[in-house]
Amino acid sequence: MAKLIKYDYEFMSAGQVGSFGFKKQELADLGKKLQSINQKIEKRKESPDLSFRKLPYDNLLVNLLGKLNNILKKNFKNLVIVGIGASDLGARAIIRTLAGRYNNQLKIKGLNIYFAGNTTDPQVLDDLIKILDLKKTAFFIVSRSGSTIEPMVSFLYFRKKVIEAVGWQKAKKHFIISTLPNNNPLGDIAEKEGYLNLAHYPGGGRYSVLSVNGLLPASAAGFDIKKLLAGAKVIDKISKSNNLNANSPFVFAALQYLAYKKRKQNISVLMPYNYYLNEFAFWFRQLWAESLGKDKLGITPIAALGPTDQHSQLQLYIEGPHDKIITFVIAEKYKHDLRVPKTNNREAAYLGGHSFNKILNIEYKATSVSLMKNKRPNGTIYLPELNEYYLGQLFFFFEMAAVYLGELLGINVFDQPGVEHSKKYMYGLLGRKGFEKEAREIKKYL
Amino acid sequence: MAKLIKYDYEFMSAGQVGSFGFKKQELADLGKKLQSINQKIEKRKESPDLSFRKLPYDNLLVNLLGKLNNILKKNFKNLVIVGIGASDLGARAIIRTLAGRYNNQLKIKGLNIYFAGNTTDPQVLDDLIKILDLKKTAFFIVSRSGSTIEPMVSFLYFRKKVIEAVGWQKAKKHFIISTLPNNNPLGDIAEKEGYLNLAHYPGGGRYSVLSVNGLLPASAAGFDIKKLLAGAKVIDKISKSNNLNANSPFVFAALQYLAYKKRKQNISVLMPYNYYLNEFAFWFRQLWAESLGKDKLGITPIAALGPTDQHSQLQLYIEGPHDKIITFVIAEKYKHDLRVPKTNNREAAYLGGHSFNKILNIEYKATSVSLMKNKRPNGTIYLPELNEYYLGQLFFFFEMAAVYLGELLGINVFDQPGVEHSKKYMYGLLGRKGFEKEAREIKKYL
Repeated sequence: MAKLIKYDYEFMSAGQVGSFGFKKQELADLGKKLQSINQKIEKRKESPDLSFRKLPYDNLLVNLLGKLNNILKKNFKNLVIVGIGASDLGARAIIRTLAGRYNNQLKIKGLNIYFAGNTTDPQVLDDLIKILDLKKTAFFIVSRSGSTIEPMVSFLYFRKKVIEAVGWQKAKKHFIISTLPNNNPLGDIAEKEGYLNLAHYPGGGRYSVLSVNGLLPASAAGFDIKKLLAGAKVIDKISKSNNLNANSPFVFAALQYLAYKKRKQNISVLMPYNYYLNEFAFWFRQLWAESLGKDKLGITPIAALGPTDQHSQLQLYIEGPHDKIITFVIAEKYKHDLRVPKTNNREAAYLGGHSFNKILNIEYKATSVSLMKNKRPNGTIYLPELNEYYLGQLFFFFEMAAVYLGELLGINVFDQPGVEHSKKYMYGLLGRKGFEKEAREIKKYL
Repeated sequence: MAKLIKYDYEFMSAGQVGSFGFKKQELADLGKKLQSINQKIEKRKESPDLSFRKLPYDNLLVNLLGKLNNILKKNFKNLVIVGIGASDLGARAIIRTLAGRYNNQLKIKGLNIYFAGNTTDPQVLDDLIKILDLKKTAFFIVSRSGSTIEPMVSFLYFRKKVIEAVGWQKAKKHFIISTLPNNNPLGDIAEKEGYLNLAHYPGGGRYSVLSVNGLLPASAAGFDIKKLLAGAKVIDKISKSNNLNANSPFVFAALQYLAYKKRKQNISVLMPYNYYLNEFAFWFRQLWAESLGKDKLGITPIAALGPTDQHSQLQLYIEGPHDKIITFVIAEKYKHDLRVPKTNNREAAYLGGHSFNKILNIEYKATSVSLMKNKRPNGTIYLPELNEYYLGQLFFFFEMAAVYLGELLGINVFDQPGVEHSKKYMYGLLGRKGFEKEAREIKKYL
């Protein structure tokens, strides 16, 4: 029987951490708003912004990707993802979580996945070109607007190299594009050159992980995208509940809200105790920062990692200012387990025979209780195990939580007006027409 | 002529960002304390804590590592670093900065370097064992106390596997240890089994990057450790100056102090615009958190990365609360540069012909000016280029800045009392003798 991920927030409560935690009445009061918030969201369900809720039900896409995947497997060994921000972080979170750190060397299944184009650092491109056999390499170029500088310049560079390697005609098969289906530079080039353009999902990038942006890489790497979507569906369903106790994404949002508004805890840490969820925390970090950081409001998200950061950040979390709340993510069952070999050394003997799995869980528990004893609010999301199904739940859990938190804060979570200005400066400095004023303005500071 | 890294703090000032920036008089007033702070530090120069200032002058170690490196190169292809927190982050920062992301595949020079043991996640160990030829693999086990759980269990596991692969006698050569030279489990095992034990430097781990902990991996990977140390020496020298204008680490500390104490900016972001400095930011993050996060004080450090985080965190930095300051790190010259191929597409044509290098610098500049225009204080550390010499400067710059900031805040930057409690819980749950009380206490919450 498929289970639900569980959010345990006992150590977030005033009962455990005194004045730094939430009061039951505060949470209950917010719960009274849930019905009207759900109604408000329901009314807008046909808007592009909220169309991410339809993604788990897109069976057509699943079938298409299945067919595409067969073609990719036949022709290629590597898939390079070229995108920045949301166009990269979702796919990265899926691949690293399910395939681990050494997937490409281990060659478990599917294509080798590489990530490039999330920078314009020439060294990265140069290194990657050197280690890849371009004849065996396909590229997935993701850019919602089709004009974002970083993926565009990487794309142009890879395209040139691929054409040099296989010729203009064969190069067509090497590029798959995800961009909005209106006129834009990337889409126009794709059309002119005959690259497959899988239309970008109409909503914003940071809610696109379960669209083609995340599903194509997941499928190419050999993972079961149906299970990812099935997980998302379960959370979509519980998010329709107006009952506080049944709707864990709302509870999570409500506790983030109360920490920020009532107790000035302006920092929210996500700390998985699983090495392969590290990149998931960076996906969360973008979702939180870009969705909620506006109008001089915003909770600053931090991606941490257990047990690594016990030896880096925990000192600050335990004895620093009372300015943060922490959420752990725990996978209760690991695919593999190992045992610590026995040792004759008297002082280390107590470690012998323990399972690594158990040690990891003990490290988490000791950290969580220790924080609570020091009046540091922390909660935990439990995954029964780390697989496609529960990862799908996890993505959707945070997406819905971000939407709820935006409603509670009175913030539009779907825009990012703050970064437009610096884009115009860039266009100006790069000599793009129409941005002469911005060029003059910034040149004063060069 | 060797240059100095430069700290530009114009955009941190009230003149540029109004009430969110520092006033010249505030900085000048702190400058008056510099002489007495330097005297105080000078008086304690023989203490283990401050012995990190002697590390750049340790020529004996440089010679020893040169010889050791010849032996390593003759016998091994891979070096695995096993350590957690400070025992791992310094080496990681050096290797990733100088060798990049694909060093092991590119086989530029020296041994392939892998990082393990910064977790107890069984999957990581398991994967790593699968991809390594253990006969050709040496392990560098770093644990100051010699009893830290994570490196100890990884060490015991790797040791068993190596003995299985090459036999007990040959295994001796596969392990090099860095631990304090008093009695401790790791040191005792090393002595009994005949593993080379290079004594851990007497000070704390987070000031150990220029000791054997960072230098052995750097040297094994083929980098010039003399240049790393030469860079550190230059900053050591300028840190002895009592003149505010000559002592950039003190200026950096003073501006962090003023932001935190006078303007409640409790978050400090380090955002290199160089993909390969990403791990450097994580080294900084530990230095800042563990050194300064205590007594209910502490600035929360964030490791960010440009231009990646323009599409993830910048929205929050520009339009969120005025609760943070940002420091960019820029390498002015790259080892490699590439040019964007020309394109006929009208809207993307403006990108053609630009160097990637230039684009990266434009992205940084647009971000920095844009933040300033939105009254967000930000400063920049310029490196003439990214090599051993300037990286050595950068490490020492932040180490001295942390010491100065501790003096200004009245905090002992060299201890980490907050994490002791959770360690005791762990010992209790793992059945170590002497921790029965803690075991009982935490078992209430299982």
